[in-house]
Parts: sequence; C-alpha cells; structure tokens
Amino acid sequence: MTDASQDPLVIFTPSGKRGRVPAGTSVLAAARQLGVDLDSVCGGRGVCSKCQIQPSYGDHSKHGITAKTDALTDFNAVEERYDRVRGLKTGRRLGCQACVQGDVVLDVPAESQVHKQVVRKAATTRHIEMDTATRLYYVEVAEADMHDPSGDWERTQIALKTQFDLHGVTLPFAQLSLLQKALQDGKNTATLAIHTARAGQAKVVGIWPSFTEPNLFGLAVDLGSTTIAAHLTNLVTGEVKASGGVMNPQIRFGEDLMSRVSYAMMNEGGEKDMTLAVRDAMNGLAQDLAQQAGIETSDIFETVFVMNPVMHHLLLGLDPIPLGQAPFALATSNALDITAADLDLNLAPHAQVYILPLIAGHVGADAAAVALSEAPQKVDPLTLIVDVGTNAEILLGNKTRVLACSSPTGPAFEGAQISSGQRAAPGAIERVEIDPITKEPRFKVIGCDLWSTDPDFSTQIATTGVTGICGSGIIEAVAEMRIAGLLDAGGLIGSAEQTGTTRSKPTGRTHSYLIFDGSETGGPVVEVTQGDIRAIQLAKSALYAGARLLMDEFGTDSVDRVVLAGAFGAHISPKHAMVLGMIPDCALEHVTSAGNAAGTGAQIALLNVAARREVEDLVHKITKVETAIEPRFQEHFVAANAIPHATAPFSGLRAIVPLPDPSFNSGGLDGARGRGRRRRG
Amino acid sequence: MTDASQDPLVIFTPSGKRGRVPAGTSVLAAARQLGVDLDSVCGGRGVCSKCQIQPSYGDHSKHGITAKTDALTDFNAVEERYDRVRGLKTGRRLGCQACVQGDVVLDVPAESQVHKQVVRKAATTRHIEMDTATRLYYVEVAEADMHDPSGDWERTQIALKTQFDLHGVTLPFAQLSLLQKALQDGKNTATLAIHTARAGQAKVVGIWPSFTEPNLFGLAVDLGSTTIAAHLTNLVTGEVKASGGVMNPQIRFGEDLMSRVSYAMMNEGGEKDMTLAVRDAMNGLAQDLAQQAGIETSDIFETVFVMNPVMHHLLLGLDPIPLGQAPFALATSNALDITAADLDLNLAPHAQVYILPLIAGHVGADAAAVALSEAPQKVDPLTLIVDVGTNAEILLGNKTRVLACSSPTGPAFEGAQISSGQRAAPGAIERVEIDPITKEPRFKVIGCDLWSTDPDFSTQIATTGVTGICGSGIIEAVAEMRIAGLLDAGGLIGSAEQTGTTRSKPTGRTHSYLIFDGSETGGPVVEVTQGDIRAIQLAKSALYAGARLLMDEFGTDSVDRVVLAGAFGAHISPKHAMVLGMIPDCALEHVTSAGNAAGTGAQIALLNVAARREVEDLVHKITKVETAIEPRFQEHFVAANAIPHATAPFSGLRAIVPLPDPSFNSGGLDGARGRGRRRRG
Repeated sequence: MTDASQDPLVIFTPSGKRGRVPAGTSVLAAARQLGVDLDSVCGGRGVCSKCQIQPSYGDHSKHGITAKTDALTDFNAVEERYDRVRGLKTGRRLGCQACVQGDVVLDVPAESQVHKQVVRKAATTRHIEMDTATRLYYVEVAEADMHDPSGDWERTQIALKTQFDLHGVTLPFAQLSLLQKALQDGKNTATLAIHTARAGQAKVVGIWPSFTEPNLFGLAVDLGSTTIAAHLTNLVTGEVKASGGVMNPQIRFGEDLMSRVSYAMMNEGGEKDMTLAVRDAMNGLAQDLAQQAGIETSDIFETVFVMNPVMHHLLLGLDPIPLGQAPFALATSNALDITAADLDLNLAPHAQVYILPLIAGHVGADAAAVALSEAPQKVDPLTLIVDVGTNAEILLGNKTRVLACSSPTGPAFEGAQISSGQRAAPGAIERVEIDPITKEPRFKVIGCDLWSTDPDFSTQIATTGVTGICGSGIIEAVAEMRIAGLLDAGGLIGSAEQTGTTRSKPTGRTHSYLIFDGSETGGPVVEVTQGDIRAIQLAKSALYAGARLLMDEFGTDSVDRVVLAGAFGAHISPKHAMVLGMIPDCALEHVTSAGNAAGTGAQIALLNVAARREVEDLVHKITKVETAIEPRFQEHFVAANAIPHATAPFSGLRAIVPLPDPSFNSGGLDGARGRGRRRRG
Repeated sequence: MTDASQDPLVIFTPSGKRGRVPAGTSVLAAARQLGVDLDSVCGGRGVCSKCQIQPSYGDHSKHGITAKTDALTDFNAVEERYDRVRGLKTGRRLGCQACVQGDVVLDVPAESQVHKQVVRKAATTRHIEMDTATRLYYVEVAEADMHDPSGDWERTQIALKTQFDLHGVTLPFAQLSLLQKALQDGKNTATLAIHTARAGQAKVVGIWPSFTEPNLFGLAVDLGSTTIAAHLTNLVTGEVKASGGVMNPQIRFGEDLMSRVSYAMMNEGGEKDMTLAVRDAMNGLAQDLAQQAGIETSDIFETVFVMNPVMHHLLLGLDPIPLGQAPFALATSNALDITAADLDLNLAPHAQVYILPLIAGHVGADAAAVALSEAPQKVDPLTLIVDVGTNAEILLGNKTRVLACSSPTGPAFEGAQISSGQRAAPGAIERVEIDPITKEPRFKVIGCDLWSTDPDFSTQIATTGVTGICGSGIIEAVAEMRIAGLLDAGGLIGSAEQTGTTRSKPTGRTHSYLIFDGSETGGPVVEVTQGDIRAIQLAKSALYAGARLLMDEFGTDSVDRVVLAGAFGAHISPKHAMVLGMIPDCALEHVTSAGNAAGTGAQIALLNVAARREVEDLVHKITKVETAIEPRFQEHFVAANAIPHATAPFSGLRAIVPLPDPSFNSGGLDGARGRGRRRRG
C-alpha cells in the first residue's frame, strides 16, 4: 500500500482545481480525475494536440507549493515526434503524454478547454460557454477479424464506447458507405463528427479518414419577417467568422405577417411559393457567409433558427393559415431537431437543424430566444423586455415567474406608414431635437455624426442628402414635439397661432410640423403630419397595452427594469420612448437596450447545447397571454392612445422631463376627435 | 364494499382465460383486465369494430356456468348506429360497447385478435403469430386552445399517451404537414399508422383524417444471387395477397457472387451499376405484386429483406470488394432498421425496411432467416441444415449451441457447368432412375407427371419436348449411375465393356452415359459426361466438407436430422443426395425438405416483430466458422471427393441402398487420375 498523502499535488489554473494523483499519472488523466476541463479529440494518443498545458515551475506561495523542474516526466517519443513534425509552443506539453512526478502548477490555455468562454461581438458584450452539440472524435477501430466477424460500424461503435465512453451512437444510413471508405483509407482510423441533439441521441454526422481537423461550422439564424440575419461560427474555437443579412424575399408576397397569411389563403399553393422563397434566400445567405469566411457550405454542420410562428411555419413548409385566426393553432410548438435536408438547405450532407420552441400562436421562437438571451427568470428585479418590430414580443418576469405576449404594433416603428418614412439607411433622419423656446428642430441623419445645425453638416451629407425619416427619428420627433408643446396629450398638432411657430402648417383640416425642407434643392420635404402622429399612437398604444396586460397578470403597476430588444430597439432613445408612452414609467437608468437579443439567443443555442434545454424548460414554464381575445387589452389600448398616457401618471418621467399640457382641440382646425363637429359646421 | 366473488364470471374462448369483473365492465375492458387478445384501433369508441366478440348463451357445463340471455347489456345507441350503418354479423357484439352483467362465455373470432395465427402457404405448413411492427391507431385530438397553446403534434402525442398508453412516439419531419392537414380535414381526429421498430422507437409512418381503414401491406423479400422472391402480405389480416419472383438482373454483371465482386473490382463504379440494377428490379417486383393484389405500391409500409452478404452490400450501396478476400470485412453486420427511401424503393413515403443480421462475411441474412425459420436452437436432436444454392449456407446445432458456415459449392447443383444442364423449367429432366440389371434409364421432365417409359409420355411432352437436365436431375442421374454400377467410388464412368451397356460411350479419353437421344427429331442429346461428374463432385465435396467442419467443431461424427432448405432443396431426393455424399449419413426418414426456409424466415420477421429480436439474439450467439481459411476444410474436401465418401462408412445408407464397388481406373480409358499415365503411353 502506498501513502496517498505523499502523492504529488497538482494544481490546475485558471480553474484552481487541485488534488493529489499517484506519481506517473498523465496530466490528461489527472485533469479528468479532478474534473478539469481539458480537451482531447484523439482520446490520449498524442495525435490531436488538443490537450496542451503549460507547467509553471518554481515557488508558488499562493498555492503553497514549490514545483521542481522535474515535476513532469521528460518528453517521450510521442511528444518528441509531435514537436519535431508539428511544433509545440515553448513551455507547452501534451497533457496525454507528460506524467506527473512531483507537485506542480499546470495552466490550461483557453484553446485547450472544451468549455471555453467566447465573447460575442454585439451591442452587449456577453460571454457564452462553449458546449457544442457537434464534436470531433478520433477513433482507432479494431481490424476486421474473420474469426469474430462484425461490421465496420459495429467495430467503430465498440471503439467509441471503449475510447470515449460514448454509448448508443447511431449512424445515418447514408453515412455507412462513407465509414466503410474512411476506414479503408485511414487504415482503420477515422475522425468522426458526432452530434448529440439531446442525451441518448448521438449520431455521426461527418466522417474523415485518419486524424483530420475538418472545418466544423455552425450557423445561427434570426429569421425575421423583414430581414434574415445570421452568424457563421467555428464550432471548435467559437470564433464568429462571418455575419450578414439579407432581406426576406417573402416581402413580395406581403409586407407583414398577416398579409402573408392572407396571400396563402387567397392563392392556392401560395404558402409553398413562400416556403421556396425563404429557403432559397437561406441557401444564398449561407453561400455568402461561407464565402466571406473562406469555407464551403458543406463545412456547415449545424444551424439554429429563431423566428416568429408565421415564419416558422413558412420555413418548415407548414400551412400558416391557422395562425391567421383564433385559436391560432400551431402545427407544432416544441423545439425541433431536424436536418438541413428536411429544409432543402445545401449544407453538410448530414447537417442538423435546431429550431427553438414557439411560446404560443403569436409568440415565437424569436421571443424564446430573447428570453434565453436576457434571462428574466434569473433576476430579482421585475423586468419588462420588449422586442420591437412589426409585431412586438413582450416578456415580463423575474425569478418568480415569466409572462409573454405579442402585440400587433404594425410597421410604423420601422418608418412604414409614415408620410416621410423610410427604412433605416444612410440619409434617413434618425435623431431629432426641438428647442422648447424657439420650436426650431435640429437632427442627425444616418451616416453623419454632426447635427444639422453644424456649419459642416451640408458638406458632410453631400453624397447621401436627407432622404426621409426612419423609425427612431419619427419616435424622437413626436416625443420632442410633445416636450416642446407642439403636440397636446391627445396627439393633436397645434396651429402656428397656438404654438407660435411657422413650422406648423395647415394641411387639409389638420397641421403638420416641418422638420426639413429640401424642396429648393430638389430634395424632400420631411414633416410630421397628423396622420403620422396617429400611426405612431396606434403602434405605441398596442405596445403599451400588451405590456400593461402582462403587468395586470403579474399583479403589478410598475416594473423595475425595461429592456428594449431588436435591431431597432438598439436605436430608440429610452427617454423619447417613455415620453411617447411606448413603455411604462421607469427610472431612465433602468431602461437599457439589448441589441438583437433574438439573434444572441440563437447564437447561445448554437454554441451551448445545455442552453437548448434551458430555453425549452423556460418556454414550458412561461405563462402565455393572448392579447387578441383579452377584453382588457382593448381598454388598455384606448387609455394608451394619449401621449404619454390618459390615466397612468408617469410621475417619474414628469420629474425629469417637462411635459406641458396644452389642448389644441378647442380652436379652429380639428384633429381626429374634432372632425365630426367640424363637418357639421 | 362489494363482494367481488359475486361479480359476473367471464370466460373467453378460444384462449380459455377467465375471471370475475364488476358488473357493468365493458367486454373490451374485461379482455384487457384478463390479458385476452382483443383488437381495438379506436381505443373503445365504437368506431373501428375491431373488438367484435360472439357471446354464447345457455348451459356451458364444460366451463361450469349458465349464461343467461341478458348476460350482456342491450345494444346501446353506438352499437345500434354501427349495426344500422355498417352491419354487425348475427350474434356479434362490439366489445367496447357491450357490458358484462352476468356470467357469460365470449368467443373472440380470429379477425378480432391482434396476435392471430396465420398459415403460410408453402411446402411446410407453418403458423406465424401476428405481431406486426406497424399498427393502426384512431386518435381523437384535443382542439387547439389559445389559452394553453400547443401544436397539433404535441396534442396528438397527448392523445396517444392517454388513449393508447403510447409514449415517446416520434413524427418524421415530412409527416408534420400531413398531420396538420389530416387534423383539419378530420376535425381533430385521425388514423395513424405507427411503426415500432424496437421498444422506444415508435414513429408515425402514415396519417389519414378521421377513422380510416387504409391498405396496410408488407413485403417479405428473399433477395438471392439468381432470383428475387417476395410475398406481399396484408399486415392487418396476415393474408398473403400476392407472391412472385424475378431474375436478379445483376446476373448480367456475373453469374455468381464472386464474379460480381470481381466486376466491382475491375470496373470503376461497377458496384453502383449493380446497386441500381437490383433496386430497379425490386421496384418492378413491388409494382407487379401490388398490381396482382389490387393495391398501390404506396400501400406497402414495411419491407423485410434476407440475403447473402454480397447481395446485402450491393442492395445497400456498400462496397462489396472487401467481401472478396480475407478477412471478408463487412461494412455492417447487425440488423438494420432503415427506410425504403434509403434504398430508393418507391413504396409508402415513410415505408420502413428491416434487414436481418448477417452472420459472417460469408454467411448472410439468408442463413439467419433459415435459422429463424427452422429454429435448430429450440430442439434436442442435432440438426444439420443446408441451404443449397450457388453458395451453400450450413447450420448445425441443437439447444446447446448452433454453428454456421458457408461453402462455395458453385452453380453445378443448379444445372450450370453441366454439359446438358439447364435451369429448372418445363422440358428439363428432373428425375432419373436407372435399372440396375439392364442399365436402362427412365426419367421425368418438368411439366409432366409420367415417366419417359410411359406410352403417353411423348404425346404429353409434345409442346415442351426434352430440353436438358436440371440440378435435381443431374444429382439423381449421378447417384443412380453409382447405384447401378456405372460409376465407381472415385467418380469414373465405366466403359461399355466394363458396365455392359452401350449407353456408355467413349468421349475423348473418358466415357459418357446417354440418358436421352433426341437427335433424330432435331432434339438434344442428354448425357452425363465425365466432366459433369467432376463438376458435381466438386460441388458436393464442398458442401459435405462444410458440414463436416461444423461437425468437428461441434465434436460429433453424426447428426440426428438433416434439413434441405432452398427452393432447390425442395426438389432433391434425400436418398440420392446421400448416395452422392452431399450430406452425412443419416436415417433417411430424418432427412426432410424445408422449402424456401429463408423466404419463410423473412415472412416471419415481417409479421412478428418479436421474431426480429429472436434472430438478432440467435445470430449473436451462433458460432461462426470460416471455411476459407480452415486447413481441415481442404482435408475434408479431398476425402469427400469419392462417391459417397473415401473414409466415412455411410453404413446406414449401405444398409438400404446397394452401392457396388467396381473400379474403372485399371482398364483402357482413363479418368482424371489416369490421365498422366495415358499421356505417357
């Protein structure tokens, strides 16, 4: 019997895990014994070099040990050959070859960790722990033995069990002939890509002869009604190698979701055309991103999709018509593990697809992805998350429970249905300020950092000009008009007489406020019309009413935090959103933007398979609230028509922002409410 | 509390199962409680009528009860409507509607049993218990509820759980849109075909709206090197609706297996051509059988294949070249659950395919099917089973253990490589007798029951004539020549002088024996040449040597039973086979023919899913013997060259059949052994 207390003490950094192991234990074995995350594709054969570590010798007072220079065994033949042929960085050792023979501190560099943290480049810096569904394994398979006959695949299964403790792995039929060939070419050795969608469902999705380091990429897709955005990520390193987006070609069948559902209703086979269009676009996008990243589309082994229910059904080739009316019956709501071939996507022949679960007939996998990314269920403060788009998805919750609904805001927030509206693009007015004394505006356009009052402004925008106003611009303009007293709480624009500025001009029976007049140089006239105000009021009322309905369900009158998600949410000024009454009153410093949280959720699900179980579990627990049939939604909608609100005090907001209270309805020209009377006059 | 001993006593026939159930229990519920096999597709809703039973009233002294006419409740509204609309046979009741209220005897007709026994029409009458992998279920699915949103599929899964206790059923992706449509058309009811390949792997393979009784067929295929034979069976009733066969079109690439392997070696992509050819032939055969049965190929939901390893690899699109040389590496050996689509078979869109396991690189799934059909592992007598074909598969065993090998007999037994040989077809000589005194032959040809010596013979064969000699004919001819003293133990044909018949004619340096001379009428001359004898000797030596090798392995010098399997085995006369020394000495009454046992095994596996587990288990336990590399095989082969054998006494045979022992080698004309001397002369 040996005295274990005399065994060498091994300390791994950065984890800090420590323990004694018998002298002669390999570093890889020690790491496994102590639960240290150290990668190995070849199972410790000195082939893959994934298990590299860096020993630290000398005095480690912090750890209470002194590591002698002979704490690890010398280079053996395998390590020497590896160093000679492929080269080891100075100080590095192969963990599967170097054995412990004295106390030592061993650093595991990030690239040797399976569960390394990767940082997403996005509005919010967020860490994702790598824990991919698809991994590589190098196997050495027993030779065929005619005295104990069994197949290539059966012998490979035994290798996976004995070399990696992987049980129950399956082989898609079409891979069988590839395995046969790979084992012939690789002299009974092969590298396998194994995808484990969930426990017990491991399957081989890629096969190469010998030890191979193939390109292994994944695509995270946020499939929106308007745009399709995707990130192409190396599934081994976690590095995002290409990002990009394309317009959703279904726009030609209908701008918004309901018009696409209508298209399917009115046109036999219309849904098939839309399915074809979006799948084609996906293939084009994958091709573009692969080209950007310098890989082939056949190097893409996994794809994760997040999308709203209508896009979900249209991508999957399901009939979207039931989603057009109560009870909004989904064909399937759970997360799906399918293949790229199922969706006619031209990726790796056995590429897998994960589709996040839908929350309800109106609340999609995009909202589920936002929930995964923002994780309201993990925090104490009551958090309201609004993903602003054509359809707003709204989540409200904290550690106790999470509620969800969607609300039909329409496209006004994206600049559609606005007289001078346009999509966010260079030349679009994106920020607006109105001097409360002079009632004069200044603005910024996309592509230029200067205010319009700057002397160099016109020079700098010479190439783009001023082309219109985008979603964030119209929100700021309306809010600023309200602060400057140009607009009353009911949403009526005052006359020049009432407001004291000639920028207020009569237009038919209502008024408009002029922001920019480019007519002298052949440019556009950008003004805010009474119709624009009404469109914004409808959109923001729907958004607010949805949020308020969730607050009712939760049993609260206030929220602690507001998160604005969506690409558009990133550009909304929290103060202006609140002046407009898009969101409930809340301390401004607690209103934040999450960027494209749905896209972030897709990326998390791509890189971390445990997160898939997390979002499935969360969606299961979320309380779904259906706005379309809830009578109180209508009440909340009407009360939210006023700017910021007819009944909610918004006292927090009023304490920091002046909200004058004129009423422009008594005078000459009417607004919506006065129209009837006027006609009778 | 009620006194259960006063509950009505229910006796089910034919099972004899009996027990008391509370008054008011439905017959279906009583059957389930007592473990009685009573079918129900609709789960007891009075829709499917599969649970019909026939009550017997009156005195049942055998069972010790008297059944009053009110022992079952009267027709209820459901049963009345069913009787009115679809008609119930006199005396029949719906088991799910009729409730027990007094002692009664209930007969379950065969068509109401799931596990009914079906009889295969074949050489051997054998019962197969129905226990199919694919079954029908009628489900009533909850309506979509927007307050508790979930998908059509998720609600269907709940229905399967609650209505049929079916858990973990999966839906192939492409079926999702069909389910959506079926539930729309069927107002939330549908009939599902569910295939359970093995426990925990149930999946939906067919969907129809409402209650539907679709055609549900299965195909059992014996894919031989020369012919493809298949039975098309109704998976609900067990009735075989069509049987047929086609030539394997791969014959154009090579007559026997090794020449096909060579074709693949010599021609780049040759294996792909052969795969294409056999799949095309399968599709044609399925089409023909479907037409015969009056169904569509899309009504075929399951297919079972048995075949030798080379055909296995060629059907599956695997490289057969490794099977051409030691170590005879298989790409996969285990049973396979794949889809018809994997094999490009045009059956139901989600038709499933089961492929029996291979035993070894030379011993195929056809041998496994023979083992399943003949079940040597279930009996005490030591049983030798030979499946005679181009390659003979040989099994030897009893309850203690089972051994298997294959032996390269070549095509002589099928009439190939024989001077007047032909395939078994009308006009071919299939039986031969030689008078031991006169040395005159008589024979029968396929298509005529008369001996050639019958006065009406020539009239009756007028249309076909005598065209040649088939496998069983040449075996009988050679054996009869041996009995009649025309052939010595070494296999030499004696001269006219030595044998005393002018039918022995010199041909070059050897002799031939004339069976039929049709030259005067322009017909063929059918004779047995010395070359024919040598070909048969090679084939029978290989067969015997394989069997003897297994006997060595088993540690025995004799067997208790011999079973001749294979379509050809059905036509071999046991006595002649033994005179030839094809099989070891054994009491003639214990030599039987099993017909196409491989085909029967395929049919068993198609209809009884438990049999699939049985054959997988058996194959796992079988001891595989590789003849190609076993030195004793060569020894046995040489000793078996003599007719019947050089060393084995065959004393049982000699006791009933005279085996004169002339030697024709001393005289003038030589045989193989004398050729050298003659040349020098």
